Amino acid sequence: MRALVKESAGPGMVVKDVPVPTCGPNDVLIKVHFAGVCGTDLHIWEWDAWASGRLKPPLVIGHEFAGEIVELGTDARTAGLLKVGDRVTAEGHIICGHCLPCRTGDYHVCRRTSIIGVDRDGAFAEFIAMPASNVMRLDGISTETGAIMDPIGNAVHTVLEGQKVAGAVVLVVGCGPIGCFAVGIARAAGASLVIASDLNPTRRDIASRMGAHAVIDPKTENVAGRLAELTGGDGVDLVCEMSGHPSGHAQAFDAARPGGRVNMLGTPSRTTEVDFARDVIFKGLTIYGVTGRRMYDTWHTMSRFLRSGQFDPAPVVTHRFPLEKMADAIGVIKDGSAGKVILEIGA
Amino acid sequence: MRALVKESAGPGMVVKDVPVPTCGPNDVLIKVHFAGVCGTDLHIWEWDAWASGRLKPPLVIGHEFAGEIVELGTDARTAGLLKVGDRVTAEGHIICGHCLPCRTGDYHVCRRTSIIGVDRDGAFAEFIAMPASNVMRLDGISTETGAIMDPIGNAVHTVLEGQKVAGAVVLVVGCGPIGCFAVGIARAAGASLVIASDLNPTRRDIASRMGAHAVIDPKTENVAGRLAELTGGDGVDLVCEMSGHPSGHAQAFDAARPGGRVNMLGTPSRTTEVDFARDVIFKGLTIYGVTGRRMYDTWHTMSRFLRSGQFDPAPVVTHRFPLEKMADAIGVIKDGSAGKVILEIGA
Amino acid sequence: MRALVKESAGPGMVVKDVPVPTCGPNDVLIKVHFAGVCGTDLHIWEWDAWASGRLKPPLVIGHEFAGEIVELGTDARTAGLLKVGDRVTAEGHIICGHCLPCRTGDYHVCRRTSIIGVDRDGAFAEFIAMPASNVMRLDGISTETGAIMDPIGNAVHTVLEGQKVAGAVVLVVGCGPIGCFAVGIARAAGASLVIASDLNPTRRDIASRMGAHAVIDPKTENVAGRLAELTGGDGVDLVCEMSGHPSGHAQAFDAARPGGRVNMLGTPSRTTEVDFARDVIFKGLTIYGVTGRRMYDTWHTMSRFLRSGQFDPAPVVTHRFPLEKMADAIGVIKDGSAGKVILEIGA
Amino acid sequence: MRALVKESAGPGMVVKDVPVPTCGPNDVLIKVHFAGVCGTDLHIWEWDAWASGRLKPPLVIGHEFAGEIVELGTDARTAGLLKVGDRVTAEGHIICGHCLPCRTGDYHVCRRTSIIGVDRDGAFAEFIAMPASNVMRLDGISTETGAIMDPIGNAVHTVLEGQKVAGAVVLVVGCGPIGCFAVGIARAAGASLVIASDLNPTRRDIASRMGAHAVIDPKTENVAGRLAELTGGDGVDLVCEMSGHPSGHAQAFDAARPGGRVNMLGTPSRTTEVDFARDVIFKGLTIYGVTGRRMYDTWHTMSRFLRSGQFDPAPVVTHRFPLEKMADAIGVIKDGSAGKVILEIGA
Repeated sequence: MRALVKESAGPGMVVKDVPVPTCGPNDVLIKVHFAGVCGTDLHIWEWDAWASGRLKPPLVIGHEFAGEIVELGTDARTAGLLKVGDRVTAEGHIICGHCLPCRTGDYHVCRRTSIIGVDRDGAFAEFIAMPASNVMRLDGISTETGAIMDPIGNAVHTVLEGQKVAGAVVLVVGCGPIGCFAVGIARAAGASLVIASDLNPTRRDIASRMGAHAVIDPKTENVAGRLAELTGGDGVDLVCEMSGHPSGHAQAFDAARPGGRVNMLGTPSRTTEVDFARDVIFKGLTIYGVTGRRMYDTWHTMSRFLRSGQFDPAPVVTHRFPLEKMADAIGVIKDGSAGKVILEIGA
Repeated sequence: MRALVKESAGPGMVVKDVPVPTCGPNDVLIKVHFAGVCGTDLHIWEWDAWASGRLKPPLVIGHEFAGEIVELGTDARTAGLLKVGDRVTAEGHIICGHCLPCRTGDYHVCRRTSIIGVDRDGAFAEFIAMPASNVMRLDGISTETGAIMDPIGNAVHTVLEGQKVAGAVVLVVGCGPIGCFAVGIARAAGASLVIASDLNPTRRDIASRMGAHAVIDPKTENVAGRLAELTGGDGVDLVCEMSGHPSGHAQAFDAARPGGRVNMLGTPSRTTEVDFARDVIFKGLTIYGVTGRRMYDTWHTMSRFLRSGQFDPAPVVTHRFPLEKMADAIGVIKDGSAGKVILEIGA
Repeated sequence: MRALVKESAGPGMVVKDVPVPTCGPNDVLIKVHFAGVCGTDLHIWEWDAWASGRLKPPLVIGHEFAGEIVELGTDARTAGLLKVGDRVTAEGHIICGHCLPCRTGDYHVCRRTSIIGVDRDGAFAEFIAMPASNVMRLDGISTETGAIMDPIGNAVHTVLEGQKVAGAVVLVVGCGPIGCFAVGIARAAGASLVIASDLNPTRRDIASRMGAHAVIDPKTENVAGRLAELTGGDGVDLVCEMSGHPSGHAQAFDAARPGGRVNMLGTPSRTTEVDFARDVIFKGLTIYGVTGRRMYDTWHTMSRFLRSGQFDPAPVVTHRFPLEKMADAIGVIKDGSAGKVILEIGA
Repeated sequence: MRALVKESAGPGMVVKDVPVPTCGPNDVLIKVHFAGVCGTDLHIWEWDAWASGRLKPPLVIGHEFAGEIVELGTDARTAGLLKVGDRVTAEGHIICGHCLPCRTGDYHVCRRTSIIGVDRDGAFAEFIAMPASNVMRLDGISTETGAIMDPIGNAVHTVLEGQKVAGAVVLVVGCGPIGCFAVGIARAAGASLVIASDLNPTRRDIASRMGAHAVIDPKTENVAGRLAELTGGDGVDLVCEMSGHPSGHAQAFDAARPGGRVNMLGTPSRTTEVDFARDVIFKGLTIYGVTGRRMYDTWHTMSRFLRSGQFDPAPVVTHRFPLEKMADAIGVIKDGSAGKVILEIGA
């Protein structure tokens, strides 16, 4: 089959023929229709410090996908709910099930997580084998949308964790694809006021189309002033920090009201100076670090939102490429002109 | 009446005669038996940057106390539960009741909090007037113990917020009085393993007597190694950060297990460099800033713990002084030889 | 002033002149614009067993209202947020603040609750005095809507208690005014599927206009079959039981899915046979009894929903009468033709 | 191997030779050391309505056990944590993993649960095969105690669900083995006052030895009066209803304070008349039906309690029999003289 492969340590990836993966006894073999390109894939393409420290080439890349079941493993426990021909997506974190986080419901921080497209062969390929337990039927959600449920799920995890969202004031700092998804998820979950902040006008525009009541350009606007005005001085109940930059952290801590919450998904590449006294302790603030998706509560809520039409990711999807054009996909992500980019593989 | 007064901007306090406070229509007038000396009082004594920026002398100092009701205001709503002669303590945060945090149950971060002994006259005096709503009957708890329920309440708030404590592994970083109280509270609340860390051997000894299963000297011991051994590699479920130092923060973030929690009470005087990617996001960590006490859930649980005998603060109380010896009290706090210090006022 | 008064034990009420209430030192005196008529008022009108056991005539009736501040008590703590001329509504449960439920945040079940229009003079009058702590500014919400925030708040309490509503399947059993409000609140809070059940076609129609995705007539339809079809066999996550009838309880327990929840507001006048093994234990069900409104979390969320336009009670309000026409108001409530009925008093 | 088998529809069981179960690819084969006899086994022995409606003989009975791993299936995912020779116990509910309850963390009410010893061959045998995901290492807990972690887990689930236990007043209604375990669990979790009620003096005595601060005989004592006296009029925060009798339900609903909670585990064989207005709605009560154990949060907490010594089930274990003496085991359970009964199989 054709697959996008990191062949050796160093930048780039190549499309080449590799064997169709074996469908293990507990696995489901899936023909991939669409796959999503993630910032993680950009790090892998560029072979940065994180990528070179973690990946062991050769490896098929890609962890966001959806497609169709073509084979069921001999011992796959599916409760009669999965069969050949079903359109499905899958959680890309493969977990041990036995560590303390797994035994207490925090599967997303399993101590032995293996991620497809990072630690084992991934989804930028015509076929992928996944443990049956990680696979979910789409039941009416298109495989194109199914292919980006992984990052939509990041947004669901970020928005719904902890504080009640119904009636809340939500600020999204950083309007990359997951930030824009977070705007729409906050609206779907009943937030009363959703504000989005980004330096990039294209991204602010997508955030508006996803339902942001207001957008802020932190370069030209007085963020604190705008927030005070928009919230009548009450401040922000929940900040979704999606930028991963120290300036985003500063915005987040300043914006969150006393008793509020900062859910942090954007992954910083450096440290941040934090004034814990002023920003966390005297404010009674809660900070939560978001990894992956809650398995599988996040997926359940997301499916409901998508099937009911409460949430539509369409405005975020700006580009589609065939597998062979990965260099172009990387290009539009790097130059900031893209929202979410999708690879068309086998639809 | 005699009172300990900060007379003017600058270090020190003086004992002098001031008028007995008026018992307002919604107030209760209390004859003070005992009062607790807090780190905050040390800041005020020394007139540091925080103190000089906040206090408006002249002011009676002190916010931890207990005593006996001598007068009820004409309109004081007490539900028939408070009467002259009752032994009582009181929450020292006087709140507005109308701001968003107050209207949603986060009274401890009320936007208009006025703290006795900081923003208005305090408890290092023979009498204090308090709003009836802030006053609680001791019902069998001694007034000496009642006088330190404010800082014990800080420990209760820190230990009980968020994560289930029953069966948990709890690490207390910093064994000042509140840290030592936290050790005992964690035991009372059913923690399975309570570990305490401090540089000072006297404090480690008090932590042991409060029930710590193990104590660590971070100067001479490999903290990570000890924790791995003590927890069988699982790590710490809940860290109570009581030191307020960047090195304590580093210890806390390193110790907390994936999916764990750091509740932070120690107030730093400077910023801390945080690696949010490594320490918070990839770990799925929660950080919570602790201010004051939950009103009045914290007080309720604390009263139950004290009356049942599940928690006994006695090992922490190392010194008692009369009001006139405040300089000596400040001395033993500064030289690190003290646990909790109590002023004997009118018992 | 004019007021609607229950003069003596027995059916009916009369409009008569009574003194304007005194504005106590902690009170706010409010000129009433509008008031809502509640099922409770019908019980009082008819002088049923509950009413005759609880009320001590003579008494001004009415507990749902909004209006304008005309006087502030001398000691009223308003944090500068309430002033003469402000349009306001108020929580009608006056609580002690000192009992265990009050001290642990469950003010709505205070052991010494005094309800306006039931235990003390109420709001069907030109003026009412209320403790300042119970009063909230409308800030742009009309006084007509403000007058029915008490029952809308019942719906908010019922819908938002416990289970996550975002993405949920919600069934409202019984479409009186609060049931119809619950439909709209569930939509505002992000429920993915809201189903309403009532025997009365007028009420089902109002429920549809409040946003119910589907309505069921339990007399002519197979409820279990419809629910199975509507939910794809998954069942209902949250049932709001608003009918107070044993048949409604049976519907609720049957509809709730394993791990689901029944929040019960409709007040039964008789007992219900419950099969706890089948309906509660083997299902892992949670049942919660709804009294009043969470003080003041419910009011805060409701205000956000109303100001943002996420929730509009208009379709539920079917009748308006002057104070003098209370008999007519009672009539339309009894004959089942009414949604919510409002008294126009002093707008 | 020897096993205790229900051979055909009708009362009784027989010890007979049956084949050692096959260790499937995802299974672990366990040599059984000890097994616990449960009330469920009594129903099966007597072949009551429930048993005859659910079981399909022939079947090996028994669902509480612990022992030693003798074989690992070829595809068993154990994260390197399970190996031959490990002493282990196991959760007896085998779940589908794909239904809505499973996908949202409520595995204990999986729609396709298969229970060992009820729906498939069980543990009253020399060997049992279990899915690896259900198996947990004992790590120092004895196999005799491990054999009763299933019912101890029922108690953990009942005591720890919902309300904060630290500082709570807990009433256990019904002191069979699980009720007595609940007493000890409540103490371990930091309850401030644990009260136990039972008609049987032997059981009250075991409850006392498990740490009950007070015991009540509902036949000879005024329960409401005793509770008022013991709780200072505050009432009970959490009632654990373990009796399954309408009189126990009445005791529970009457004892629970406003805002309190009734967690219900005792399985009734008939319906109960409930006054929802008085007992649930006006009280703001929460009722929760307890099935099985939370997978695997319950097991984790229980292991911590057992290893730390916070909880010791020894006083509850009153009888031990070899497999051949099952009739005697049934006898001591039926005549009320037993606490927990253990079968010695292969230790």
